[in-house]
Amino acid sequence: MNSNPVLVQAWRGGVVESRHRGSCAVLDADSSVLWSVGDIYTPVFPRSAVKLLQALPLVASGAADALGLDDAALALACASHGGEEVHAATAAAMLRRAGLDDTALECGAHWPYFEPAARALAAAGRLPCPLHNNCSGKHAGFLCLGAHLAGDRDARGFVAGYVRREHPLMREIEHALQAATGWDLARAPCGTDGCSIPAHAIPLRQLALAFARAGSGVGLPPGMAGAARRLRQAIAKHPFLVAGSERADTLLMQALGERLCCKVGAEGMYCAALPELGLGLALKMDDGAARAAEVALAALVQALLELDAPQAAAVAAWSPRPLVNWKGLDVGALRAADTFKAAARAAGRNMGRFAG
Amino acid sequence: MNSNPVLVQAWRGGVVESRHRGSCAVLDADSSVLWSVGDIYTPVFPRSAVKLLQALPLVASGAADALGLDDAALALACASHGGEEVHAATAAAMLRRAGLDDTALECGAHWPYFEPAARALAAAGRLPCPLHNNCSGKHAGFLCLGAHLAGDRDARGFVAGYVRREHPLMREIEHALQAATGWDLARAPCGTDGCSIPAHAIPLRQLALAFARAGSGVGLPPGMAGAARRLRQAIAKHPFLVAGSERADTLLMQALGERLCCKVGAEGMYCAALPELGLGLALKMDDGAARAAEVALAALVQALLELDAPQAAAVAAWSPRPLVNWKGLDVGALRAADTFKAAARAAGRNMGRFAG
Repeated sequence: MNSNPVLVQAWRGGVVESRHRGSCAVLDADSSVLWSVGDIYTPVFPRSAVKLLQALPLVASGAADALGLDDAALALACASHGGEEVHAATAAAMLRRAGLDDTALECGAHWPYFEPAARALAAAGRLPCPLHNNCSGKHAGFLCLGAHLAGDRDARGFVAGYVRREHPLMREIEHALQAATGWDLARAPCGTDGCSIPAHAIPLRQLALAFARAGSGVGLPPGMAGAARRLRQAIAKHPFLVAGSERADTLLMQALGERLCCKVGAEGMYCAALPELGLGLALKMDDGAARAAEVALAALVQALLELDAPQAAAVAAWSPRPLVNWKGLDVGALRAADTFKAAARAAGRNMGRFAG
Repeated sequence: MNSNPVLVQAWRGGVVESRHRGSCAVLDADSSVLWSVGDIYTPVFPRSAVKLLQALPLVASGAADALGLDDAALALACASHGGEEVHAATAAAMLRRAGLDDTALECGAHWPYFEPAARALAAAGRLPCPLHNNCSGKHAGFLCLGAHLAGDRDARGFVAGYVRREHPLMREIEHALQAATGWDLARAPCGTDGCSIPAHAIPLRQLALAFARAGSGVGLPPGMAGAARRLRQAIAKHPFLVAGSERADTLLMQALGERLCCKVGAEGMYCAALPELGLGLALKMDDGAARAAEVALAALVQALLELDAPQAAAVAAWSPRPLVNWKGLDVGALRAADTFKAAARAAGRNMGRFAG
């Protein structure tokens, strides 16, 4: 059993209470591994961390333009959102553009991840619908693509069962994911995601490569480079739509704009593009802990990017991340392990951060 | 950096998606380590897993009898509950017995852990109060002890600031914890818990010993053996009050009754007594994952106890634990690692389970 190193520790009372192991890869678009920690070759499930890649066909196909989708819609297509009002409303608007409604969504319903939104819904005597599913924007994007692909056919009939791997719509998504990552998905382990679409296992090395490509445009098939740039710009304009209140992705990208295009995934995943460096990164916490993935991502950003004061402050809120108890007392912190931080900083220097 | 073995795996699509390392100890009341996995000597924070030990003075002091606390109150004193109506009401009733109310609670307030209870509160236009804090029963127990210790003094004045380590009330709690675990808390790392009381770090070996003692009465100071028995019986009568809807502790003890006295703690902790075997056990997941601690505890119960069919079914619901997505599809499972299960079973046989 391989043992990846500890990347993040939870501290309490001056000692380490819990520890999170993991691995990460930093690549450029030429497939060079510029830095890595732990195992980056065993396939892992990227889960929602690759939503940007899964949204490429929506733009590259011309569907987004044909339906007049704006930047808000494109950002939501890449989102794992909190189910807040603007998220649900934007997903509903996307579906209207496709001539569909929320009954076409096959992602299932769950209470909004953002607890105050869930409680507001309950207080209004309402129940959650598929629009509140954190993946509703991705699915609405799928359905917009589906309506476009349907052409003269009945869109509703064409998209039925779209979450199945064999469906022509899902084949488009899989094709884009394979093209971006350079990984043969036909031979990859495949499970089912929380929102019922196929979940493919892909090595961190290939995931980081895909985000280096998405951030630089280099190495993507025709049409997809422009699509990636447009999605990144849409996300940078609407970081709230990609996640929501109190969420790392939103707060980090509100501060860093197009300098960072990052996306969390279930089970401790993160993928990100650092366009100005031409780099992509991917990380997975062995134990699937989101709290640790956020700290590790923030520590990597601190190590790899030169940040101005407001940017540094925004990132520092996540690394170290204070642990506060129910009375508001500071009881500890989630911290990137010293060894991980030091290695990441050294890697950042090697990549020329301080060369200038 | 020591590396504890993988105890629990999260499976998806036929492969392991995430893995949880950890350690566990099984002891008898004579301090014999009958079985262990991983590091059981480095102190860990047991968090809420030792609430039964922290409730010993409430009974041993005579406070519970003097105030006429019933079994429901004693069970709630050992609880990390879901903040459901009966939990909050029972805590309020305990405080009335002490001549106090919820303004004396210093645990802080949070929304009920059981989401439907939180949403019901929101739907009623209410906000959570300290009675909904998952630790409100423990704190109400502390305050009942405090009212008893206050004697002729003003109880409200006496208990003020009771969460501080130096407070005479908290000294009683610390004394009981030290007596049961046999661990010198004066020299142990000490942090602050979620509910603001001191959190002491104690090795798993000593925690398992304490639960072997609590389950057998052997090795406890005068008065505490009877107190432990009474608390265990109260918990067995009211397992719902110890946790609540959909919770492992409640469902397992509803099925097993006095055969199992188990308690989850934050950051991947579990402690349990198996009275019929005279054993105590303690486990900690390195990464602090509650989902893994539940599976590991269930796997240990499967290995160590001879279960009838309804009991086996109740435990099997937690090991393996199915992972179901938002559409209700079966997408994987949390499973005890084969190596861990096999070793636990062998240990169970060695302890005479199949000797009969």
